[in-house]
Amino acid sequence: MERTIKQHIIALEKAALEAWNEGNPDAYMELYAEDYTYFDPSLDRRLDGYDAIKAYYDKLRGQINVDKFAMLNPEVQIINDSAAVLSFNLHAHERDDFYRWNCTEVYVRQDDGQWKIIHTHWSYIMPMLR
Amino acid sequence: MERTIKQHIIALEKAALEAWNEGNPDAYMELYAEDYTYFDPSLDRRLDGYDAIKAYYDKLRGQINVDKFAMLNPEVQIINDSAAVLSFNLHAHERDDFYRWNCTEVYVRQDDGQWKIIHTHWSYIMPMLR
Repeated sequence: MERTIKQHIIALEKAALEAWNEGNPDAYMELYAEDYTYFDPSLDRRLDGYDAIKAYYDKLRGQINVDKFAMLNPEVQIINDSAAVLSFNLHAHERDDFYRWNCTEVYVRQDDGQWKIIHTHWSYIMPMLR
Repeated sequence: MERTIKQHIIALEKAALEAWNEGNPDAYMELYAEDYTYFDPSLDRRLDGYDAIKAYYDKLRGQINVDKFAMLNPEVQIINDSAAVLSFNLHAHERDDFYRWNCTEVYVRQDDGQWKIIHTHWSYIMPMLR
């Protein structure tokens, strides 16, 4: 059971990442719960709620074009078979740029058996401060 | 019930932060579960397990001296009354430096009723890339 959940969560995330890296946020949007919250390093505060992330992603649609990426060392911590904390590092090449990320995704199993993300935290590995 | 859990989680975090900001990691260490995982921006990968975070924090003991901090806009997303995702921004003044953080903490209620953290993600708000 635990192994199946882990594989399922990682597969959901990889499929959403692949679409995202081609400029398409829809696969991530389909995974987000209504009470979703979101951190990334380009924002000065958390985004709260599905409508807020939808507005943010709609502006980024078609803007991302990652040539190559690797999800490194994914870990899935399962809570009572009903929630799962996925954490991984992501290395991404976009034209001449190379980005290294930390990522946390909190998945929760819904009443219908589907898994939804309620919280995301993206951050840069070893950035500099302004 | 939900309101009580939220207040309890925020109080646990604030107490641990206050000790941390005086250079004492013990209050955080007491909150961490055995299968704890940890991201912060100074590391090039995730730390996995209680022993890894203990070794890391032991080196930082007495090194942190935050003069003033504010936990901003804390949100607690509760999952089936048995897990809670705390997210907040932290503004911290340390001598002449000012740090702005995003923070995610995933708390899980243990069989004995105590809440433990299984995952932490600290990151900088709007840093620069190298």
